[in-house]
Amino acid sequence: MSLYAVILCGGRGERFWPKSRRTLPKQFIALFGRNSLTQETSARIRPLCPPERQLFVAPAEFEVVLRRQLGPRACLAFEPVGRNTAPAIGLAAVYLQRQDPDSTMVVLPADHLIEDRPGFLKAVRMGAQLAQQGLLVTFGIRPDRPDTGYGYIQLGRKTAGKARLTAHRVQAFKEKPSPARARAYLAAGNYVWNSGMFIWRVDAILAAFREFMPEFHAKLEEFATAIGTRREKQALAHLYRGAPSISIDYAVMEKADNVACVRGAFDWDDVGSWLALVRHIKPDSAGNVASGLFVSKDSTNCVADSDSGIVAALGVKNLVIVRAGDAVLVADRKRLGQMKQLLAEIAGHAVGGRHL
Amino acid sequence: MSLYAVILCGGRGERFWPKSRRTLPKQFIALFGRNSLTQETSARIRPLCPPERQLFVAPAEFEVVLRRQLGPRACLAFEPVGRNTAPAIGLAAVYLQRQDPDSTMVVLPADHLIEDRPGFLKAVRMGAQLAQQGLLVTFGIRPDRPDTGYGYIQLGRKTAGKARLTAHRVQAFKEKPSPARARAYLAAGNYVWNSGMFIWRVDAILAAFREFMPEFHAKLEEFATAIGTRREKQALAHLYRGAPSISIDYAVMEKADNVACVRGAFDWDDVGSWLALVRHIKPDSAGNVASGLFVSKDSTNCVADSDSGIVAALGVKNLVIVRAGDAVLVADRKRLGQMKQLLAEIAGHAVGGRHL
Repeated sequence: MSLYAVILCGGRGERFWPKSRRTLPKQFIALFGRNSLTQETSARIRPLCPPERQLFVAPAEFEVVLRRQLGPRACLAFEPVGRNTAPAIGLAAVYLQRQDPDSTMVVLPADHLIEDRPGFLKAVRMGAQLAQQGLLVTFGIRPDRPDTGYGYIQLGRKTAGKARLTAHRVQAFKEKPSPARARAYLAAGNYVWNSGMFIWRVDAILAAFREFMPEFHAKLEEFATAIGTRREKQALAHLYRGAPSISIDYAVMEKADNVACVRGAFDWDDVGSWLALVRHIKPDSAGNVASGLFVSKDSTNCVADSDSGIVAALGVKNLVIVRAGDAVLVADRKRLGQMKQLLAEIAGHAVGGRHL
Repeated sequence: MSLYAVILCGGRGERFWPKSRRTLPKQFIALFGRNSLTQETSARIRPLCPPERQLFVAPAEFEVVLRRQLGPRACLAFEPVGRNTAPAIGLAAVYLQRQDPDSTMVVLPADHLIEDRPGFLKAVRMGAQLAQQGLLVTFGIRPDRPDTGYGYIQLGRKTAGKARLTAHRVQAFKEKPSPARARAYLAAGNYVWNSGMFIWRVDAILAAFREFMPEFHAKLEEFATAIGTRREKQALAHLYRGAPSISIDYAVMEKADNVACVRGAFDWDDVGSWLALVRHIKPDSAGNVASGLFVSKDSTNCVADSDSGIVAALGVKNLVIVRAGDAVLVADRKRLGQMKQLLAEIAGHAVGGRHL
């Protein structure tokens, strides 16, 4: 088998406004260090998948930024519009099938942060072995807190591995839980966060599409005949016109019975909001976390991110303060879940939309 | 008599950081509308004092900005260093005495905001009449709230005027009061805010300097002999080397017995902190006041000032948010009194000082 990485670059990253914008969402910005999350994701999987076996899938509008960040030789597949993960994965699968029918694909969202590369690669290797058995493999993350922002996977019988890297049957997928339920999951020990990373043989995932999304699968087969021809672009537009906007979890994983889960020993962060900075930057003695020049007086538990100049805080607490380009955001830490509503407010303002 | 305006431009305006900076303090920035407070002050007194009878006194470091804002023909007197109001007024007095020994001078801080120009000019006219009797006249402002940030003047017997424009003997100058005392002053009715504006004959104020600051007065007389000669600059440096840093209130007004007060009917704001914006800009339905593009969601009683781009607030309250040049300030409204300490913190930071 050949292992290919399919890196999904379709996120909108609204919760990182104003550093992320419509034209430059989260996966393309350097939140930590010098490289964008997409560049980091590419570098992380490189030991198993060299650049010629990395395929980036993104809405067409991100073509310029992707080429700029990944260079002219990157393999890119552009969706006419973003349609959640199932269509993007289907599209990648038919491209890979044409290139190498025997291939295995590891699916990686471009906007996750993993610092333990060896641990991550070990888990991928174990997943690749399971995939050879025709299983649809998902990667589960050991929860270290009762987070209510993630879906959970209830693990069944262990089928392989030892110590902190094990493979399991999957008993059930669980929606984002209530706080009480999240605490129960954490205490139970056999629940993991659903990371949105997967590995499977291309023929296995296409068989699953055939079974659970037969209409879309038929269109995928139709599209496959157009790949490499003059009809390709038109066929792609046709494929996406009818494509449902649905996640691969919901469309396939929760329905299939040949599902397995690798529980890895690596760290993982989906960098879901500005508070992710708190998990990756050392706080000062007042609990403030800052990227960029931040000076404070009598201020506690603030998160500051500034692309230039200085951010100064006086007598405030529990705020997220971001300065990026032409915009400043000041938000209560506990209210970051309402970023979407704030952005709607900005969009509704006479001249606000140009700042999104 | 000829009436001259002496406009004092020596304030540091630290409380308006980051819009005001060391090199561009409050009096030189356009806080409201298009013109700086200094330009507004000049325009306001113009009907009584045309430009050739306006003298601006400022520390030498502000020469460039003053010339830029006032044009090449403005009459400027530069202090080697800022030394509070008494030396600046003494300096202006000897310059004017040389020009016109019979002149009267109205002293106006450059950083106050008065919108009712006719009301202001009426009060100045009344003050000018009193000044002809040799009185040292101060302007008192009717308090509309028990503000603890101002000194107060206890008015004595009415000596002239009617309705809302009256002249009084001065019974006592009062330091910035406690909240309880401020409420008592407001209720009593015969207390006014000490505006820091004055009018007097030049010979009267110089006589007062002779009486209450004899050493400094002697130096002023010495300096006067050097005006217009090659020794002037050196003599000015000498004058200021020994000049005490003291306010005219403390040095003269509180000691003199030929003091009168004009209680005007005009509005007045010394624009002492960012909260001054609340008094001059109409709030939105959530009590937010903004200058520049401000969009908010579930945010109340905030003050936002932005020189460009957009400021967005989510779920916050009682904040002052300022974006100016390369700096962002986020402060609790009630903590603006500690701006000095915040700026000290910034000054102490390795690269913070360059942002002051």
